[in-house]
Amino acid sequence: MPNVAHFFEGVEKLLEICFDESSSPNGDLRNITRGEWENLLCHVKCEIISYIKNDSIDAFLLSESSMFVSKRRWILKTCGTTTPLKCLEQLLQLAKLEGYHVISDIFYSRKNFTRPEIQMSPHEGFFEEVTYLDTIFPEGRSYCLGSINLECWYLYTFSKPELKALPHLIVEEKSTDADPDQTIEILMQDLDKDIMSAFTKSKFTTGREVTAYSGIDKILPEMHIDDFLFDPCGYSMNGIRENGEYMTIHITPEEKFSYVSFESNVALNNYTKLISQVIKTFKPGKFIVTIFANKSSLAYETMKELEIEYSTLSNWRRTDMQCCNFPSYNLLFAQYSRALEKVL
Amino acid sequence: MPNVAHFFEGVEKLLEICFDESSSPNGDLRNITRGEWENLLCHVKCEIISYIKNDSIDAFLLSESSMFVSKRRWILKTCGTTTPLKCLEQLLQLAKLEGYHVISDIFYSRKNFTRPEIQMSPHEGFFEEVTYLDTIFPEGRSYCLGSINLECWYLYTFSKPELKALPHLIVEEKSTDADPDQTIEILMQDLDKDIMSAFTKSKFTTGREVTAYSGIDKILPEMHIDDFLFDPCGYSMNGIRENGEYMTIHITPEEKFSYVSFESNVALNNYTKLISQVIKTFKPGKFIVTIFANKSSLAYETMKELEIEYSTLSNWRRTDMQCCNFPSYNLLFAQYSRALEKVL
Repeated sequence: MPNVAHFFEGVEKLLEICFDESSSPNGDLRNITRGEWENLLCHVKCEIISYIKNDSIDAFLLSESSMFVSKRRWILKTCGTTTPLKCLEQLLQLAKLEGYHVISDIFYSRKNFTRPEIQMSPHEGFFEEVTYLDTIFPEGRSYCLGSINLECWYLYTFSKPELKALPHLIVEEKSTDADPDQTIEILMQDLDKDIMSAFTKSKFTTGREVTAYSGIDKILPEMHIDDFLFDPCGYSMNGIRENGEYMTIHITPEEKFSYVSFESNVALNNYTKLISQVIKTFKPGKFIVTIFANKSSLAYETMKELEIEYSTLSNWRRTDMQCCNFPSYNLLFAQYSRALEKVL
Repeated sequence: MPNVAHFFEGVEKLLEICFDESSSPNGDLRNITRGEWENLLCHVKCEIISYIKNDSIDAFLLSESSMFVSKRRWILKTCGTTTPLKCLEQLLQLAKLEGYHVISDIFYSRKNFTRPEIQMSPHEGFFEEVTYLDTIFPEGRSYCLGSINLECWYLYTFSKPELKALPHLIVEEKSTDADPDQTIEILMQDLDKDIMSAFTKSKFTTGREVTAYSGIDKILPEMHIDDFLFDPCGYSMNGIRENGEYMTIHITPEEKFSYVSFESNVALNNYTKLISQVIKTFKPGKFIVTIFANKSSLAYETMKELEIEYSTLSNWRRTDMQCCNFPSYNLLFAQYSRALEKVL
């Protein structure tokens, strides 16, 4: 056996595509069959391990993270060395069969990898990812938030209403009367050792046990939860509500490369309490918060002020804060580390 | 002669360093002699061509752009294939002789080059520039605003109070009761052909003539102006006021790569009118605005709202807007192109 230190890249690649109304009366992304999804996920190099649904949303737990499917929106979040961009063309073909010819929004985002050199093409670097996306979507725009030589977060998003490789698919700027939409992500590293030790098979047998023990079930208590504890360690959960809200948490507990991600589209006009509860649950040494909100969202006008408030009221030191105005979304990016780490 | 198309890189590299109070009672960067500056500028590959001063500020017109020196602040802005980072160590040595051991702020910024491949080391790419700066200043932070695969603007700035290569020089976060400070830059491309044709020796003999003809002298009428018309074309001007305010404009008029930059530290709580007048004077096809303001500045709280107002009132399409909160400064970045260019 070669003497290679054990490592797992917890940092996820997050891909979200929203379509305009279907041209077919029964068009719905949830008509896509389990077999078709399994086939599509082969390109990503991951598998479905569990599944829950309600009238608004289907939630798949994957061998590497999660997939959420609602009528017009598809979200794929995968960690490790998966290759989510490789399933894009197949996704667009499947969507077209459901009458989805018009894309309203695309977001591809991720934090900088801890070990970028182990990723596979087209994920060997953000420029390679952008080049790949540009072969499918012309005129996408790519951003790097945070310090590009230190910790950062990459985003690729659309701005122009046309498609190069798939000429029958049209991309349009979302109108201002779109449904309210918001997404919060909290990406945590250097987590508390004792808390992380719970997310192992040596301590618990099932996901359900550790969900309750850790307090994950109290973060957004209304959620119907599907959880999974990996062997020997690692944890994933999806939660869904009837109104289409979801949450998802993925945990890489190993001390040397601990990583926890929290994501939800829950509609709040103040994310301060939610952030506090997530941070108290996992006790990271540093974390990034991103909040997307469209013009119809409760969070749109207030998120900047709320963020400032959070920083003032807590013991965290905000090392970076940026916001971006996109055609239909505002984005807030903020990075925190323990105030104690401040070097004099 | 090789068949190489004529090209000049108008895009400037902008370096600004502010020092804390001098440890010597007569410490003043303006004590540095002309001979010392000429020697320092050899490293940059440019020369002094003209000079004005008042009680607050010395303003040098350079063969490639400008240099401003006040008691505790030094600004160097150079275009073409100059190498401004190469004079940094010498600048810090000269400052030390004047009792300046503590750096309060450093900013190095530039737009993406039109032709990066003709630049010289360490300016062959932003990563090379950052690597070079990191040999002098540890823990600097580097940002890319705008779309990193399209038009963008790079910034390197400080955050930590220490210096690697020059251990006697200390870098400190500016306290909140610092003097008000703000800088606006407007970087314009694809300029009006007729307006640009004025900035040639075939049309005018002196800088003064074209300054009046173009309306440059009306942008900030209080300024004492030093202007220069290059042969066969190209234009530079510095303007200064007794209160320490400056402005500087540099023009590359050639149609294929036209570029105009405007910069000033004038204190306003609303930059909308100034931006409008600059844009009317030069009629660009696209432009970037950056505004830095510290917490003591009139512009600090209001610049975001003002920017939104400008976009709403004008016919310009804002293609990007981002803002960053740094420890002592807010930064606004906005990119505009003609609304007519909107592709349906």
